[in-house]
Amino acid sequence: MVTKTLGELAQYVGGRVLGDANVKISAAATLGRAGTGDISFLSNDKYEKQLLTTKASAVIVGKDTVTASTPLLVADDPYYAFMQIMVLLHGHRKHKKVGISPRAIISDSAKVGAGCQIHDFVTISDGAKIGDGCVIYPCTFIGENVQIGNDCLLYPNVVIYEGCKIGSRVIINSNAAIGEDGFGFATHNGVHHKIPQIGSVIIEDDVEIGACCGIERGTLNDTIIGQGSKLGDLIAIGHGTRVGAHCLLVAQVGIAGSTTMGHHCIVGGQAGIVGHIAIGNQVAIGAQAGVINNVADGKVILGAPAIDANQGKRAYGMIQYLPEIKQSIRELQGQMKQLLSGGEDKPSIPEDSQSSDKP
Amino acid sequence: MVTKTLGELAQYVGGRVLGDANVKISAAATLGRAGTGDISFLSNDKYEKQLLTTKASAVIVGKDTVTASTPLLVADDPYYAFMQIMVLLHGHRKHKKVGISPRAIISDSAKVGAGCQIHDFVTISDGAKIGDGCVIYPCTFIGENVQIGNDCLLYPNVVIYEGCKIGSRVIINSNAAIGEDGFGFATHNGVHHKIPQIGSVIIEDDVEIGACCGIERGTLNDTIIGQGSKLGDLIAIGHGTRVGAHCLLVAQVGIAGSTTMGHHCIVGGQAGIVGHIAIGNQVAIGAQAGVINNVADGKVILGAPAIDANQGKRAYGMIQYLPEIKQSIRELQGQMKQLLSGGEDKPSIPEDSQSSDKP
Amino acid sequence: MVTKTLGELAQYVGGRVLGDANVKISAAATLGRAGTGDISFLSNDKYEKQLLTTKASAVIVGKDTVTASTPLLVADDPYYAFMQIMVLLHGHRKHKKVGISPRAIISDSAKVGAGCQIHDFVTISDGAKIGDGCVIYPCTFIGENVQIGNDCLLYPNVVIYEGCKIGSRVIINSNAAIGEDGFGFATHNGVHHKIPQIGSVIIEDDVEIGACCGIERGTLNDTIIGQGSKLGDLIAIGHGTRVGAHCLLVAQVGIAGSTTMGHHCIVGGQAGIVGHIAIGNQVAIGAQAGVINNVADGKVILGAPAIDANQGKRAYGMIQYLPEIKQSIRELQGQMKQLLSGGEDKPSIPEDSQSSDKP
Repeated sequence: MVTKTLGELAQYVGGRVLGDANVKISAAATLGRAGTGDISFLSNDKYEKQLLTTKASAVIVGKDTVTASTPLLVADDPYYAFMQIMVLLHGHRKHKKVGISPRAIISDSAKVGAGCQIHDFVTISDGAKIGDGCVIYPCTFIGENVQIGNDCLLYPNVVIYEGCKIGSRVIINSNAAIGEDGFGFATHNGVHHKIPQIGSVIIEDDVEIGACCGIERGTLNDTIIGQGSKLGDLIAIGHGTRVGAHCLLVAQVGIAGSTTMGHHCIVGGQAGIVGHIAIGNQVAIGAQAGVINNVADGKVILGAPAIDANQGKRAYGMIQYLPEIKQSIRELQGQMKQLLSGGEDKPSIPEDSQSSDKP
Repeated sequence: MVTKTLGELAQYVGGRVLGDANVKISAAATLGRAGTGDISFLSNDKYEKQLLTTKASAVIVGKDTVTASTPLLVADDPYYAFMQIMVLLHGHRKHKKVGISPRAIISDSAKVGAGCQIHDFVTISDGAKIGDGCVIYPCTFIGENVQIGNDCLLYPNVVIYEGCKIGSRVIINSNAAIGEDGFGFATHNGVHHKIPQIGSVIIEDDVEIGACCGIERGTLNDTIIGQGSKLGDLIAIGHGTRVGAHCLLVAQVGIAGSTTMGHHCIVGGQAGIVGHIAIGNQVAIGAQAGVINNVADGKVILGAPAIDANQGKRAYGMIQYLPEIKQSIRELQGQMKQLLSGGEDKPSIPEDSQSSDKP
Repeated sequence: MVTKTLGELAQYVGGRVLGDANVKISAAATLGRAGTGDISFLSNDKYEKQLLTTKASAVIVGKDTVTASTPLLVADDPYYAFMQIMVLLHGHRKHKKVGISPRAIISDSAKVGAGCQIHDFVTISDGAKIGDGCVIYPCTFIGENVQIGNDCLLYPNVVIYEGCKIGSRVIINSNAAIGEDGFGFATHNGVHHKIPQIGSVIIEDDVEIGACCGIERGTLNDTIIGQGSKLGDLIAIGHGTRVGAHCLLVAQVGIAGSTTMGHHCIVGGQAGIVGHIAIGNQVAIGAQAGVINNVADGKVILGAPAIDANQGKRAYGMIQYLPEIKQSIRELQGQMKQLLSGGEDKPSIPEDSQSSDKP
């Protein structure tokens, strides 16, 4: 267990201390659950009042204007400071040194780099190349001629179809499939004929892929997940689609085939993007959005169909008032009818009142 | 094969018979497919007319006012009676006694309880504890220090990451992942830095998890699936989220991180729930709903964004009339313009008519 | 590598050549990436201008009216011609001849046909029957009494629960689950009791199932995927649902239980269909649609709730104008109030104008 003083932590992350810099910190915990020796983190303004009641020994915050019952570590980018301290105190997942299991099946023509941990029941097919320092957990399948860089983590039951290229420091979570055939069929006389999918999948460096994702190989061009992009669980990426660098795709997103997405995009959970469109750079797409047209750089969109977020927040939030809107229109129509008939016939009592008053 | 008279079944479930209590029943079948010896079940009023044509030997119903060509078993809770009879006649899935396969890899420091069936190619990692009477199918992976209670069923290719705690009588279907890292990254200078996820996943007693689900481990707090809750297939649960007891989540639901859900909630298929909100007890959420705010106990909501169901059913159903609504407004605006110009200028012929009549 | 002249290819697909029929073709590539020896394909009118710049040796098109810098192969059904040429030049995926691995576990009571390739770590349970020429990749699980026809491809980590029936030439991609229990529970006194699911799953001939799909077995009736239907990745099919022949279901579609779908339907990505309804033949359902009612043959629908596509395209596209609609109504109401009060009180100058004109 690593133990640091709050002052040491502040120095480590380039922040400053408000309060006692000598409190000792050895773990991180939420404001509600933290105790002595824990550092906590104000992640969301709605938890700010917990600063007065938390039992944490210190709290990381982004501004020094808050009122707290504990010493504070003030950092310009508090979430990044929190990450740094989490890594310092707790570290990333440790992987057991298992070497190359005799119960893994590794083709004679495959190459496995130095320092790899290849677990039981792994299959590494002909011509595959695994870099140095990779950890491949049980029952994961590496197809023919797959290339994997250094220091990758493949959790159990991952499947990488033949010919895919995986960069370095890539993490692929359990039960994800990489490189299955794209959904490409030529329909002729009512029968769907499978089109060979001769493209591949390229996963660039530092990508993380969530559990149970499916990333199709391309028909002709490769499907690409750009450097540093992170995909949540249960995401479907269509054939020939290119996701740029440093994108964040939340769980259950689906992107159809042949779409391109720029860099630093954020896509909310369950959002869907049609095929053959171009999404710019630094685009933010709301959860459950349905994106059917090209999107320019820097746009923030939401809704299905997706529109500009400012407009969309108001517009989609207004659907609930449709019954009132319709009622207002009916009233206006009734009043208008009355006025117009009054204008034409000039009766002293409007038509509608007559019929209802004297049945 | 179990055979019972209808009278015996009625007694078993606490119901009563209308018609011949001596007919023999040995299986269950749908109204449309049942034959002699089969008992059927009226699950949905829209199938009620099939009561006159079914070849079933008996039908379970909830009221005695229906007209049927067969003997009836009337039960206060007919679906529960149907379940009881299904279990009596057909039983739950039987699991072959395979003992502990020599082709399973079980760490010396793991403990496996009495009467477990551990299939081939299973991995049970260091420090894991499996209770009594569990069945673990091939290629399932149990990570380090995972704890599993008694009488659990883990179907093939399930992955449970290190440190997760599974209660008793839990069923986890194929290709589900439990405890993969939460989707937590600190973005700094455009690069997403992984935050260690030191929370775990707790699956309480009597939970069932569908195929291809992904349940993330928490960043700091544990992700919890409450006692008796049932999750359909392809569900994504975010890190640190707590689903209460006895909830039903239909297939493809997604819940983002740090959300809490009370007990006895029902969530329809493909619904999405954002992170950091609180859903009360006995809340019902419609299929494909998008829930973005706290929800009070007992609420029934639907739509995206989700609103009260009564209001929502009308409001979302009214979207289709938007073209007519817009047309009505245009007409009203035209009429209004005419009236107002008439009011200001008092011309004998309204402006619009002039321009169109005398071009 | 297969090399053909453009003339030979045209003859093979029943098309005709515009330009030099003697150019040699040995591969397919996209318009943007093709080079000498490549044939390309105009898949989408928006790429038509690339016909003037492509380096391809030839391009397959559907009409001879286009202007191109290369020889053209004109075909009545160009996508089908493209498929035929892809198969001719590149072929479908080749599968290594591995025979029956000694590390596969095959029950003595199971039958495996001639020419099958059964990889390592496969489990074939008691009573299962596998036809001729099947390829079963590592860590795939075949349950008890499962029946599989001829020439099927089961990629790694597929799970087929007991008793399911798979036709011939079926392809099931990685991490798909077939025949897990349907989501059926009888709730009694707040506890959800599991109903035995005694139906099965039938996958008919020539079906393809995507990665990470979950297809539930039926409660009483079987779940059926009809002949020639193709399912994308991450699709959830509920218990007892029947998908007809030659349907196309795009990734992340969900269909609840006991629904029937006719033949030649197309369902867009992320669409959801409720249980217990009937979808006709040749129905097209838009991406992200929410289908809650029966749908007649030949209908094209979209939106959630799903409505006729022509109407729906306009209606859902109009949500963005709701703020303006509301504003228009407010204005009309204001004007109306003015007019009506004018009608009652007959002032010479309307009330609103007074207050704004003479502040």
